[in-house]
Amino acid sequence: MKSLQEKIIKDGNVLSDQVLKVDSFLNHQIDPKLMKEIGEEFASRFTNDKITKILTIESSGIAPSVMAGLVLGVPVVFARKRKSLTLTQDLYTADVYSFTKQETNPIAVSKSFITNEDRLLIIDDFLANGQAALGLLDIAEQAGASVAGIGIVIEKAFQDGGNLLREKNVRVESLARVQSLENGKVTFAEGALV
Amino acid sequence: MKSLQEKIIKDGNVLSDQVLKVDSFLNHQIDPKLMKEIGEEFASRFTNDKITKILTIESSGIAPSVMAGLVLGVPVVFARKRKSLTLTQDLYTADVYSFTKQETNPIAVSKSFITNEDRLLIIDDFLANGQAALGLLDIAEQAGASVAGIGIVIEKAFQDGGNLLREKNVRVESLARVQSLENGKVTFAEGALV
Repeated sequence: MKSLQEKIIKDGNVLSDQVLKVDSFLNHQIDPKLMKEIGEEFASRFTNDKITKILTIESSGIAPSVMAGLVLGVPVVFARKRKSLTLTQDLYTADVYSFTKQETNPIAVSKSFITNEDRLLIIDDFLANGQAALGLLDIAEQAGASVAGIGIVIEKAFQDGGNLLREKNVRVESLARVQSLENGKVTFAEGALV
Repeated sequence: MKSLQEKIIKDGNVLSDQVLKVDSFLNHQIDPKLMKEIGEEFASRFTNDKITKILTIESSGIAPSVMAGLVLGVPVVFARKRKSLTLTQDLYTADVYSFTKQETNPIAVSKSFITNEDRLLIIDDFLANGQAALGLLDIAEQAGASVAGIGIVIEKAFQDGGNLLREKNVRVESLARVQSLENGKVTFAEGALV
């Protein structure tokens, strides 16, 4: 997605070979117009997939998901990150390991909002090691829902998550695939789109 | 706002005289079409206020804020809730007391994203005791930004927050003001809009 690539080049911040900071338009400050374009792009890629609901995770997945949900005409459910879980009988839960923080934390979705009749589009802002996406897939499976695919705003293609998901035959649609952050420079796997 | 009142009556869940659960369209599952209407309503109420940025708080403030930001043509910044803060030199922080959880937790916004040239619209999903709104006002003040007002999706008018803010001469625009939840029934302060 060209406008996204351009935004990453212009406003993304390469902190190391591993870390791309995009908190000026996606993770902390949000660019609503870009979110609308991102939502429309996700919607167009899954327009024929009979999506009934979007499943995402707080907080940075919410903005692109709501914009996609608006176009597809479906509700959005966001999984909550918890530090610990006590009452779980009404929740689907999954453990998500964070390589950055080196800790495992649960995520949770109320059982009221996903059923075995749902066909889900899972959306997240980043795909790196794929742990959050695997947690959301786990929750979908517990609910007996089918998953049409996963929409990712920015995939770090040099990390394992994309392969992990595609090896499971999960359809992954990443709007920008970053191949490398070496030498402080963003290189896209799909090349520079024109 | 009539469509919001209708949604609250139809899908809100009165758990007690104090607690209105709206997690089927605002807090956990999100109705994107309603969020768009809410965003448009906020934008229209602040259209002449020269807003430069919207400040909200994760997670449930994000969806209405992004929709308002889209119409007003301004970025959204969401404060992050933290369990504890270590590195704070690049952050504006404030403590927010939760009456529900009976604990105080910090919220934080990067200093990069709010300046003394900003004119802010603060948006949140709920106004009850006003502690989150006061925390956001505190952060705005630290940044030297001016605040045009606070947009609230649902105000629990029988709790203190609204008065607390209005006594400080802060403009508060609540799209639905719940006067009472007694007898399992939602009564609006503004009456039933027709």
